[in-house]
Amino acid sequence: MNYPNGIKKNKTVILNKKIDYKNRGMNLENDINETNNYYIDNDIAFIYKKPTPIKLVKVDYKKGRIDEAYFEMPSTTDYNGIYKGKYIDFEAKETTNKKGFPLINIHKHQIKHIRNIYKSNGICFIIVRFTSFNETYLLMARDFLDFIDNIKKSVIPREYFITNGFKIKDKFIKKVDYLEIIDKMEDV
Amino acid sequence: MNYPNGIKKNKTVILNKKIDYKNRGMNLENDINETNNYYIDNDIAFIYKKPTPIKLVKVDYKKGRIDEAYFEMPSTTDYNGIYKGKYIDFEAKETTNKKGFPLINIHKHQIKHIRNIYKSNGICFIIVRFTSFNETYLLMARDFLDFIDNIKKSVIPREYFITNGFKIKDKFIKKVDYLEIIDKMEDV
Repeated sequence: MNYPNGIKKNKTVILNKKIDYKNRGMNLENDINETNNYYIDNDIAFIYKKPTPIKLVKVDYKKGRIDEAYFEMPSTTDYNGIYKGKYIDFEAKETTNKKGFPLINIHKHQIKHIRNIYKSNGICFIIVRFTSFNETYLLMARDFLDFIDNIKKSVIPREYFITNGFKIKDKFIKKVDYLEIIDKMEDV
Repeated sequence: MNYPNGIKKNKTVILNKKIDYKNRGMNLENDINETNNYYIDNDIAFIYKKPTPIKLVKVDYKKGRIDEAYFEMPSTTDYNGIYKGKYIDFEAKETTNKKGFPLINIHKHQIKHIRNIYKSNGICFIIVRFTSFNETYLLMARDFLDFIDNIKKSVIPREYFITNGFKIKDKFIKKVDYLEIIDKMEDV
């Protein structure tokens, strides 16, 4: 199941603004959202995180309140939008693993989606942050799918990101300025 | 507030499969989802409905259950994706109004989003179904924004859709085959 980032998964929690602020800037999702807001505010790109899909079970429509619902598996990646007229699509994940990125973090139908977008000539990639090293990499769909199809291991080694991916610089305003990397590519 | 289509808003309802099936094919959202599934299954386009954004308040992560949450206002349109390598984006609404489409159905920030996508050269439009006539129209963002900027009325008359929009044929398999209309356009 897919849980929103940055919140504990092992007990009942009351989410409030205090908790939201506490986590601000502390994780990849927040950093990307801030970057996307910068892109939007400056008319650079219009890229948004999709809401987590939820199965509604019991709803009080009079009060606009959901009383029972469950997290559902997303069928696509989390982020998509438009950049310079082109379709852009990516998934972003953090890992504490020091050796590499375990593929179990990306569902089968998400891999299928990445394959579809790649074949359709969309700009498609994954962003992975290795929290132990505070390093964030962008890996294009081509190289991601090449690993899955040809190397077929359950963990993409950190070295694979270093060799085939692009390190995203840590900036103050555009915290995860992934479009800077896209701009440098000749074929997108 | 934005409620999912096809369910009563005035009392507590238990949603179950029976109700889902009962409404199947009965409303625009279902028809578009079926059409999108056809496009996806046949590698024609990859366009999805975004989940309704929800503000989580109380969550039992042990059981994966949401115990209290509220519907939030979406900041973008409901549908987006990729078609022939291009970014595509639209909003879809039903109305029982016989004279026209009340603009109150589309939030200000959604109009702003449509404007952004139009300026970014995305394929952008709205789909409106007049349920009283069982007619479904596609209106390109250019003509939609032109109405808002220059005619400035609170209801887009049905005649405006007839004159400036494109009627979507009622089909058996691709129920709302909007890409057939996009294909006929020279400038997209």
